[in-house]
Amino acid sequence: MLKVGIVGGTGYTGVELLRLLVQHPEVSIQAVTSRSEAGMPVAQMFPNLRGHLSLPFTDPSLENLASCDVLFFATPNGTAMKSVPQLLQAGVKIIDLAADFRLKNAAIWEKWYGMPHTCPEYLEEAVYGLPELNRAQIAQARLVANPGCYPTAVQLGFIPLLEAGAIDAHHLIADAKSGVSGAGRKAEIGALMGETGESFKAYGVAGHRHLPEITQGLNVHSTHPVGLTFVPHLVPMIRGIEATLYARLTMPELDLQALFEQRYANEPFVDVMPAGSLPETRSVRGVNMCRLAVYRPQQGDTVVVSAVIDNLVKGAAGQAIQNMNLMCGLPETMGLQAVGLLP
Amino acid sequence: MLKVGIVGGTGYTGVELLRLLVQHPEVSIQAVTSRSEAGMPVAQMFPNLRGHLSLPFTDPSLENLASCDVLFFATPNGTAMKSVPQLLQAGVKIIDLAADFRLKNAAIWEKWYGMPHTCPEYLEEAVYGLPELNRAQIAQARLVANPGCYPTAVQLGFIPLLEAGAIDAHHLIADAKSGVSGAGRKAEIGALMGETGESFKAYGVAGHRHLPEITQGLNVHSTHPVGLTFVPHLVPMIRGIEATLYARLTMPELDLQALFEQRYANEPFVDVMPAGSLPETRSVRGVNMCRLAVYRPQQGDTVVVSAVIDNLVKGAAGQAIQNMNLMCGLPETMGLQAVGLLP
Amino acid sequence: MLKVGIVGGTGYTGVELLRLLVQHPEVSIQAVTSRSEAGMPVAQMFPNLRGHLSLPFTDPSLENLASCDVLFFATPNGTAMKSVPQLLQAGVKIIDLAADFRLKNAAIWEKWYGMPHTCPEYLEEAVYGLPELNRAQIAQARLVANPGCYPTAVQLGFIPLLEAGAIDAHHLIADAKSGVSGAGRKAEIGALMGETGESFKAYGVAGHRHLPEITQGLNVHSTHPVGLTFVPHLVPMIRGIEATLYARLTMPELDLQALFEQRYANEPFVDVMPAGSLPETRSVRGVNMCRLAVYRPQQGDTVVVSAVIDNLVKGAAGQAIQNMNLMCGLPETMGLQAVGLLP
Amino acid sequence: MLKVGIVGGTGYTGVELLRLLVQHPEVSIQAVTSRSEAGMPVAQMFPNLRGHLSLPFTDPSLENLASCDVLFFATPNGTAMKSVPQLLQAGVKIIDLAADFRLKNAAIWEKWYGMPHTCPEYLEEAVYGLPELNRAQIAQARLVANPGCYPTAVQLGFIPLLEAGAIDAHHLIADAKSGVSGAGRKAEIGALMGETGESFKAYGVAGHRHLPEITQGLNVHSTHPVGLTFVPHLVPMIRGIEATLYARLTMPELDLQALFEQRYANEPFVDVMPAGSLPETRSVRGVNMCRLAVYRPQQGDTVVVSAVIDNLVKGAAGQAIQNMNLMCGLPETMGLQAVGLLP
Repeated sequence: MLKVGIVGGTGYTGVELLRLLVQHPEVSIQAVTSRSEAGMPVAQMFPNLRGHLSLPFTDPSLENLASCDVLFFATPNGTAMKSVPQLLQAGVKIIDLAADFRLKNAAIWEKWYGMPHTCPEYLEEAVYGLPELNRAQIAQARLVANPGCYPTAVQLGFIPLLEAGAIDAHHLIADAKSGVSGAGRKAEIGALMGETGESFKAYGVAGHRHLPEITQGLNVHSTHPVGLTFVPHLVPMIRGIEATLYARLTMPELDLQALFEQRYANEPFVDVMPAGSLPETRSVRGVNMCRLAVYRPQQGDTVVVSAVIDNLVKGAAGQAIQNMNLMCGLPETMGLQAVGLLP
Repeated sequence: MLKVGIVGGTGYTGVELLRLLVQHPEVSIQAVTSRSEAGMPVAQMFPNLRGHLSLPFTDPSLENLASCDVLFFATPNGTAMKSVPQLLQAGVKIIDLAADFRLKNAAIWEKWYGMPHTCPEYLEEAVYGLPELNRAQIAQARLVANPGCYPTAVQLGFIPLLEAGAIDAHHLIADAKSGVSGAGRKAEIGALMGETGESFKAYGVAGHRHLPEITQGLNVHSTHPVGLTFVPHLVPMIRGIEATLYARLTMPELDLQALFEQRYANEPFVDVMPAGSLPETRSVRGVNMCRLAVYRPQQGDTVVVSAVIDNLVKGAAGQAIQNMNLMCGLPETMGLQAVGLLP
Repeated sequence: MLKVGIVGGTGYTGVELLRLLVQHPEVSIQAVTSRSEAGMPVAQMFPNLRGHLSLPFTDPSLENLASCDVLFFATPNGTAMKSVPQLLQAGVKIIDLAADFRLKNAAIWEKWYGMPHTCPEYLEEAVYGLPELNRAQIAQARLVANPGCYPTAVQLGFIPLLEAGAIDAHHLIADAKSGVSGAGRKAEIGALMGETGESFKAYGVAGHRHLPEITQGLNVHSTHPVGLTFVPHLVPMIRGIEATLYARLTMPELDLQALFEQRYANEPFVDVMPAGSLPETRSVRGVNMCRLAVYRPQQGDTVVVSAVIDNLVKGAAGQAIQNMNLMCGLPETMGLQAVGLLP
Repeated sequence: MLKVGIVGGTGYTGVELLRLLVQHPEVSIQAVTSRSEAGMPVAQMFPNLRGHLSLPFTDPSLENLASCDVLFFATPNGTAMKSVPQLLQAGVKIIDLAADFRLKNAAIWEKWYGMPHTCPEYLEEAVYGLPELNRAQIAQARLVANPGCYPTAVQLGFIPLLEAGAIDAHHLIADAKSGVSGAGRKAEIGALMGETGESFKAYGVAGHRHLPEITQGLNVHSTHPVGLTFVPHLVPMIRGIEATLYARLTMPELDLQALFEQRYANEPFVDVMPAGSLPETRSVRGVNMCRLAVYRPQQGDTVVVSAVIDNLVKGAAGQAIQNMNLMCGLPETMGLQAVGLLP
């Protein structure tokens, strides 16, 4: 049994990790930390865990955390980087669900996240935890940067096209939409149901932190430098991301459906929909799956991809457990094979 | 492995049965029937099942169904009764998720359901499938009438009080609220999101079919004849029932919290919340659990119970599988131990 | 033209007052105050007001406010009472949408609101602003305590029965449900869409501040002292309250439909639904109307009333303007005759 | 007073027309027709109209309709064209809110709408009712084709750029999102709250009927032939459309903010948001307004426009009344100046 700890367990990513980990057959949860809620039973804050988890939140302490085999950081940006060096030295494997280790370039990171990076020397070592791209490196990693939610959906949708060199990489468009849980469980007026319910809007058009992360990831797999316009939107629902991707086809003869099906034929957590159908976010509610479809409307030169994930699962906690399985030599799909909650 | 069939697989109860059954370790799904959709892969209609179920819908035929060990009827009211006699003779165990066998009195059934009952001689044999009340009979049954969603929540909330003789049974009030999936997956204007979203209303105040079912169930456990006012309401959400129950206390000295905790101490699927807290429907989303709390506001003589379930799980498909487990000698909780999807 | 000011304009009650007042033909808005947002154009925070209101938020100052004819306090509880004495002396008419002047008994107020009352000598003078009960006094008042949202719906539903002496006043039950805007526009985790969406729950069962307000109001109109069990619930929608009321009939021969129709025959903002129908909250979305229906299920001795309002309109801002119209000698319905937004 | 009739009054467009028309100071509603509901009071189906409209639905008859000054057709596609010739001959002005007269080319119409056009000779005369483009012709028209909801938002967003020749017209992208009321008030499983709630999806990627309508409209104002990729999406809310538009800039020096502000400076129903802000659909809920913002992310060569409307108002009923005002010589904004319902 793996001894596992969650640092920062009071957010939506934290409770989702717990929901999945309490049922993972090879995991024993050792600690769930929260400075503000230390002492409160976790299941008091999250009653869905009643009967499944008897731990209280505890204060994070290095000794305590260092006794774990694997630590998940479900903390705000800028938290994990403060203790990662000591924890790695103590032999703990780390999966950071925040952004601290997602970008390779510290200067770019500091610009987008508005703070100095306290251990830029680990950026190189950190493996970007998108198994469909980096499976082998993840299996060897001791520090994994779990991808952002939008970046997971957008990269999985563009990768087959970029790897095939089938599109104009300079002018990609990603029109992405997320449920409100993506904003986290923070006391902010903008996330009230009175503000977000029954309404829809674009946001962050001038620049969103996931833009450099996506661009960095796509560039690895593109022969030409990637240019991306990324527009996120807020959907009045709790879970789910849909990304509609647009690109100019440079290989008009290509069988797009076959390209996607072949690329993901052996991927347990990417599902290419049959030609002519489209994915709904609810089909992946609660499960570690990216479902996508590819179109070429009116037989023109624009390719359209629609990709859906549950932002808290394949976009966060589920993918983190997928990474844990890989890092620890467990079957990649262990604990991740539930069926989406529909309706 | 149990060979299992679902008759009428295109509704919300059907897809929920499938979601749970494909992961049940002792079940093999043999058939999912639908006259109108025969031939279509089930996972085409319900894409959350992609990769989990490869069967197509098939036409129901007696031979086909008779080869199953257990059949679930997820059909409209009045369907199961037409084939139950032959199927029982063929040795199949039957769990009807519709109302055909819920009432013991055929005349009352015919009045509320507006059609003649075609096999009233089976009403006596049919066991009302609320395990918390009828566990032993269910284990012996070959025909189980799975309770309605409202009746499950209301009965579990009132039973401890009635069994203890602690309330005035003549004047019970059940103010119940349900998400829209309770109305089923039928093309009706009243269930459109344009009609039910962002709005709340009472309905069926003059009389709802679940009233005689609840009254019949409560009467079994009450020393005095039960009188109930039952008002259902429609909530703009998909899953979940909350029932707030009111009764006049006749034993003001009684420790209500202890009464409920003791009554349900050994029930795996009833969870009494700690004193001072209240359950939310989301804490049971997708899981086979009734969570409830009991109050005596202002120390007056009115007791208030709040009970929540997922109408599609403990209120339908999950309870049906709980009944299957009991009828077939499997551990009662097998396949039913997931964690609720929160948020 | 009345010179009108809104103190505390950044909440949902504030923006709703503005929505209605900018279209009121006899009102000129002089000031909208907010300490925290002083200087920001109101329409920047609330873009629905773009083109309708060019004022910025301003700091509240006594001189400034004292130049208004009427002031609306849309502030947190405990704010209005600090400046009401001076403002009344300056000749301003005041409508407090918070709770400061709703209860006649200062000790009870202090118990429920957890702070000392700074001007209890005004509690007697303050008129409780439910026009259907206190129209004449409101017309003479210089200080009106605008009723709470739940109290408006519950009192309008019970009043015809209590006035007629037709029910057992000792054992009233009010099962009330509200959309999330009732919790205000405050940065609190409990009001996030991630916490309140797709879920339903009871809250405040042990005791809610609207309980003494309702009891006080009902007692005025009842020959017997009123005993009330009041259970509020949170509905995953933004606007709307539905209250289902239960009482024991003591006059079983009474024609309930006629009783309600006669009581409200001349009320412009109370609409008794035809026998056999039930109101939906969406039918009053955005408008100053209480719609209700009365039932006697199964011809038993329990009467059931279902009453709906928009909590921000008849439950707050609309009723406040109705009171302003009365206090200032304007037609009661002026500026309040829009049609509900359905769907 | 204009004598006005609504043909087909049982849908969402119909009830929205009625909500606006009962408060229009120069309109008298003569008839609301419905074959299926003839005899039922309109306010029984739509209780928000109680107290505002006492008419029953009536059977449509030529004599009856011919006595109106203006007729609105809120009927399914293919209905208006059957009676338009006779009604025009009778001197009635007609505004068709369906698609019968939106396309100039009958062959293209028949291909997309799947039926023969019964009066193609009127396609030339019919004026496309987007006042911001065709104000003068509308004022002279006796037959107006009211634009579709998506086409209204998409055209208003692209027009300033196309008129200025500032973008590559061959490769426009419109990623549009609509609330569920856009699908109408029809008994279809796909529009149930159980199917559309808490989920998001793209649809119609292969081809949507609004594509030729948008392309036709844009071509009028573009010096180069327009090529458009149009992807609609379904949002789990009732009202509102947001369209995010993408195009390649060919005039990188252009001041986009100034371009939009100048183009719409005199338009009462188009509101250009200040630079740096973005519109929400709720800011236009219930009102006849298109609110939009323009961006050039990362100072690249892609321009992004976000435009929002209420699909039932500026996207249907409100725009129809705007057209009526123009056709009948009334002030264009009469009856259309309410404030959006926020929250």
